Amino acid sequence: MPARRDLANAIRILAMDAVQQATCGHPGMPMGMADIAEVLFNDHLKMNPGNPDWADRDRFLLSNGHGSMLQYAALHLAGYDLSIDDLRDFRQLHSKTPGHPENFMTPGVETTTGPLGQGLANAVGMALAEAALGARFNHDDARIVDHRTWCFVGDGCLMEGISHEACSLAGTLGLGKLVVFYDDNGISIDGETEGWFTDDSASRFEAYGWQVIRNVDGHDAEEIKTAIDTAKKETRKPTLICCKTVIGWGSPNMQGTAGAHGAALGDDEIAAARAEIGWKDTTRFAVPDDIYAGWNKREAGAAAEKAWQGAFADYEQKHPQDAAEFKRRLAGEMPQNWSALCRQFIEKTQSDGKRTATRKASKAAIGAYAAALPELLGGSADLSGSNGTDFDGHRAITALDYSGNYVYYGVREFGMTAITNGLSLHGGFTPFGATFLTFSDYARNAVRMAALMRSRNILVYTHDSIGLGEDGPTHQAVEHVASLRLIPNLHVWRPGDDVETAVAWQAAIERANGPTALVLSRQDMDHQTRDADQIAAIAQGGYVLREPEGEAQALVIGTGSELELAVAAAERLNAEGIGVRVVSMPCLEVFNAQSAAYRESVLPAGITARVAVEAGVSDSWYRFVGAAGQVIGVDDFGMSAPAEQVYEAFGVTANAVVEALKSQVRG
Amino acid sequence: MPARRDLANAIRILAMDAVQQATCGHPGMPMGMADIAEVLFNDHLKMNPGNPDWADRDRFLLSNGHGSMLQYAALHLAGYDLSIDDLRDFRQLHSKTPGHPENFMTPGVETTTGPLGQGLANAVGMALAEAALGARFNHDDARIVDHRTWCFVGDGCLMEGISHEACSLAGTLGLGKLVVFYDDNGISIDGETEGWFTDDSASRFEAYGWQVIRNVDGHDAEEIKTAIDTAKKETRKPTLICCKTVIGWGSPNMQGTAGAHGAALGDDEIAAARAEIGWKDTTRFAVPDDIYAGWNKREAGAAAEKAWQGAFADYEQKHPQDAAEFKRRLAGEMPQNWSALCRQFIEKTQSDGKRTATRKASKAAIGAYAAALPELLGGSADLSGSNGTDFDGHRAITALDYSGNYVYYGVREFGMTAITNGLSLHGGFTPFGATFLTFSDYARNAVRMAALMRSRNILVYTHDSIGLGEDGPTHQAVEHVASLRLIPNLHVWRPGDDVETAVAWQAAIERANGPTALVLSRQDMDHQTRDADQIAAIAQGGYVLREPEGEAQALVIGTGSELELAVAAAERLNAEGIGVRVVSMPCLEVFNAQSAAYRESVLPAGITARVAVEAGVSDSWYRFVGAAGQVIGVDDFGMSAPAEQVYEAFGVTANAVVEALKSQVRG
Repeated sequence: MPARRDLANAIRILAMDAVQQATCGHPGMPMGMADIAEVLFNDHLKMNPGNPDWADRDRFLLSNGHGSMLQYAALHLAGYDLSIDDLRDFRQLHSKTPGHPENFMTPGVETTTGPLGQGLANAVGMALAEAALGARFNHDDARIVDHRTWCFVGDGCLMEGISHEACSLAGTLGLGKLVVFYDDNGISIDGETEGWFTDDSASRFEAYGWQVIRNVDGHDAEEIKTAIDTAKKETRKPTLICCKTVIGWGSPNMQGTAGAHGAALGDDEIAAARAEIGWKDTTRFAVPDDIYAGWNKREAGAAAEKAWQGAFADYEQKHPQDAAEFKRRLAGEMPQNWSALCRQFIEKTQSDGKRTATRKASKAAIGAYAAALPELLGGSADLSGSNGTDFDGHRAITALDYSGNYVYYGVREFGMTAITNGLSLHGGFTPFGATFLTFSDYARNAVRMAALMRSRNILVYTHDSIGLGEDGPTHQAVEHVASLRLIPNLHVWRPGDDVETAVAWQAAIERANGPTALVLSRQDMDHQTRDADQIAAIAQGGYVLREPEGEAQALVIGTGSELELAVAAAERLNAEGIGVRVVSMPCLEVFNAQSAAYRESVLPAGITARVAVEAGVSDSWYRFVGAAGQVIGVDDFGMSAPAEQVYEAFGVTANAVVEALKSQVRG
Repeated sequence: MPARRDLANAIRILAMDAVQQATCGHPGMPMGMADIAEVLFNDHLKMNPGNPDWADRDRFLLSNGHGSMLQYAALHLAGYDLSIDDLRDFRQLHSKTPGHPENFMTPGVETTTGPLGQGLANAVGMALAEAALGARFNHDDARIVDHRTWCFVGDGCLMEGISHEACSLAGTLGLGKLVVFYDDNGISIDGETEGWFTDDSASRFEAYGWQVIRNVDGHDAEEIKTAIDTAKKETRKPTLICCKTVIGWGSPNMQGTAGAHGAALGDDEIAAARAEIGWKDTTRFAVPDDIYAGWNKREAGAAAEKAWQGAFADYEQKHPQDAAEFKRRLAGEMPQNWSALCRQFIEKTQSDGKRTATRKASKAAIGAYAAALPELLGGSADLSGSNGTDFDGHRAITALDYSGNYVYYGVREFGMTAITNGLSLHGGFTPFGATFLTFSDYARNAVRMAALMRSRNILVYTHDSIGLGEDGPTHQAVEHVASLRLIPNLHVWRPGDDVETAVAWQAAIERANGPTALVLSRQDMDHQTRDADQIAAIAQGGYVLREPEGEAQALVIGTGSELELAVAAAERLNAEGIGVRVVSMPCLEVFNAQSAAYRESVLPAGITARVAVEAGVSDSWYRFVGAAGQVIGVDDFGMSAPAEQVYEAFGVTANAVVEALKSQVRG
């Protein structure tokens, strides 16, 4: 059996070599944290390299994702489906080893990191998922959910504000199975951190209610092991293990400096490092068999999962319904009665026909759907009542009871969103989190990460425009809808009444490969009449809501609270003998994904007289109204006043739509 | 002289009445913090209500901005130009008392707040500005810069991640004249904070190196006064005063509950509160003369400023050049030789004609301009070398020496941006802060706030697209340029070579009424030849860079690193006899602000065959290319690979531009 240090050195060698091969990357962190990773992977991490999707595996997250080669090396050595050729392809097109870890590219990678601090928040979400899933499914005679979440973080992660949000909440929620290793190497890209980061981080985390293990030598396997044992013993608090490390450890001329952080070391220095650490083979990517043998976890991992499968078979005997439900939830499948339930609720909403705010319609929809969907795990960033996320049947998760279905996230928009990403990635939950639309800004990169990771996550954004009135321009989201629409793979629904809201929620819940933003009004809006075909058409993202008696000479596209302005304008013009079609377009991304024929049927090329109306910046609409068309929007910051007055002040009125349509028809 | 409590109660009465009058708003915080505000305004705050712009005034910031009525009431009572009728107009259209404090609407309001946590970060920026300005201008015989920054924060501010970023840095920088009052009332919108916020905030701030004064009774004037005295004695550390308060203090049935937070109390409860606190006059907005007299600071404030003006006159005698420079900087004026210097630098850049990355061109531009602009105060969120903000002549500000011109912000994008907003609002500085473009997401709401506040602030965003290559999709900003363009009053420059970069920097520095984002490449790009008219035209935001020999049958618009693709495509087609004009459009907002005649001269309606090329989402361009036009962009997440391969994979190439133009001409 090789010495632990030699096992750890394999990570160092592979990291140096892969970065050199790619001529770019970050060797410093993998070399600095190699000893920690070695102890964790070889002594503690519950995993089965042959099945990276094993439900009860431990989760390992690399929040300092630039050190991706550490993770790739460890996964490769442990026996995951990641070959030495994959490592040679580090940072190459379509390789399984991209510059930063991507959960959708690499077996064993649980989340996508790189944007600092978010992996840590994802880890909080995963630990929360474990606790909540255990509370639901574990029985005294069978704990089928019982795993830990491990996370590596660097100085950068701890400087980021999101580390405060996520770790403060983790302390409050007492997530005892979360263990974080702080790579305290005193170096960030600009140099020695003492110039810009002088926190007593250990005391800071104690202030959050964490167990903190101070002053661990991150290059001493015994100290690391002891620290992990101490972490495991504490069940009511998350643990931070503060590891003193040397960035680039083993590189004789670069270690301990920012120079080791983010560039290839060069062949000479790599040769010198091989000599320094006593690695005899000078061939790039060559790892001796005994090192491989010391790391390999294929057998042990298969045995571990097999034992769990045995326990699960036993569980299935004793608790067949729970077992079936567990499997359904982990597979992300809808319950059997789901489609019928949605159809009934939507039809009832249509026939009830209420004038209401879509945030209130949303609350009703959540209540209706959540009753059938125990995996729905909601929350709000301290705006539960305003967001309407305090649905009938919501129950808080607390440190003393994880069996609820609602998280009071506090005023932590970014943390909330990254935590919900973790909940979703863990499996077993369809999370949603809510705030005012304007504060989607605070969480923006986590929204982007959800989209990039194809993560099922629902972002509830209420108070969506100048219609919120008196709170003023800081709270009036004028550019946010258009801006969210720019994020690839994000669906943005801005429903125009109660029924569209119910359909949007169904679409968001069913969407398995990406997040959905639901953009909802503070203020009441008209309910629209529809026939059955029109109800069905909402799910296409855009559809014809009103058709004139005669030929349509013009069309108007509306969304959200401006849909009623479009309808009113069309009615007025139709009465005057000018045929106007009304298109409701609650979700541009879904509409754009429909067939060309369908899109042409809604927006016929022949109708060039077009107006779009939306109380936000107008950019989204030029591709729909064309060069000749007109957009009635709000291309400036809002103002503090009663909503109707703000609408008047910006000229977003039915009158304005009428005039625009008339000028188009005359045009 | 009325009792202190009666003075404080005037705030409570005005807050209750104004919220009731508006039928919306937040009475709880003003009623809870009234006693603190009373002590601060009446015993400590250096101000002259007759001149809210006095350079050496103390700065007071309300980070929990929903409590705006506290600030309006205090400013009104102290004698600022804010009448009782203005208070009656609370939250009405175009009033001086909008829902949240807006620095551009109300005399005495230093910043715009509402989005939680940012006012606190602004305060850090203002305290830093004071320290840096003092280091530059104070002499042993005259301290013309000597004021404090006071900030109110609530639980929400302290839950937000930005509080961590800003306060950690404030501790490192030892900003001893910053004093923060924490309104520790145990209530946020969702109810009692113990369910989601259990931090030991005092210990947390001690971990940042702050002086913390614990357990102050926020309703005991003597305790508050003693705490402030202690705060003032500490000169090397910022101070946090933890005030235990009761939200809605004085409202017998609502105080201490979330119900007091964000809604009008109702006439009955207001009457009960008047009785409870012993306020005899039942008329709305009525304040007795003796209360006004107890608050009024017009005479004392004028005298305070007069004394300072006397000291400044003395300073002017002894240090005439410094005095002139101080006045110039506070006025935000350019130095005398400025235009000539810019012209020379830009002409030299044009004639040197280097193929280079625009981030490197940016570094050269900063170096050239900073030599003449001591007010330029730069920094980076731990990417100084990558961003190219470590210009020749940069010197770090530290806790021991505030005389530098550069801040190592650490990995704190949001904090950095809100701090630079504070630096700008304080006066005397033109700040810039840098990160990778993709991490503009982290700071997005502070960028928005800069735009809303008309704040001169420069946002340096490098590594701007798929061109950064191997770091992959987390780092490749595909939607960010388009997304920044949606923020009203933000200018977004994406220069196409070294010369456009130099012009963009000049425009950003000179822009007095709003922020500018400079979007820069990691990779080298071609230098473009230009005549003098074309050099001058860059400042119009868009201009004709290449004209074919014969008539232009088509035009191509390019920005940034894709400008060279547009030029290459046009050259190829011109050689084939197809006349193509190349339009460079580095700044859409500036171009759109030009006269219709100028815009028509660049983009003649007659040329309908149009292609735009930009390595990002295509939405920005539909209004320019029209219904018939074509956009070559990147409408999906990027991927980790060498840059050229990523460009190929997305089809953003000169060939693609050629084909698109050909199909347009054939049309």
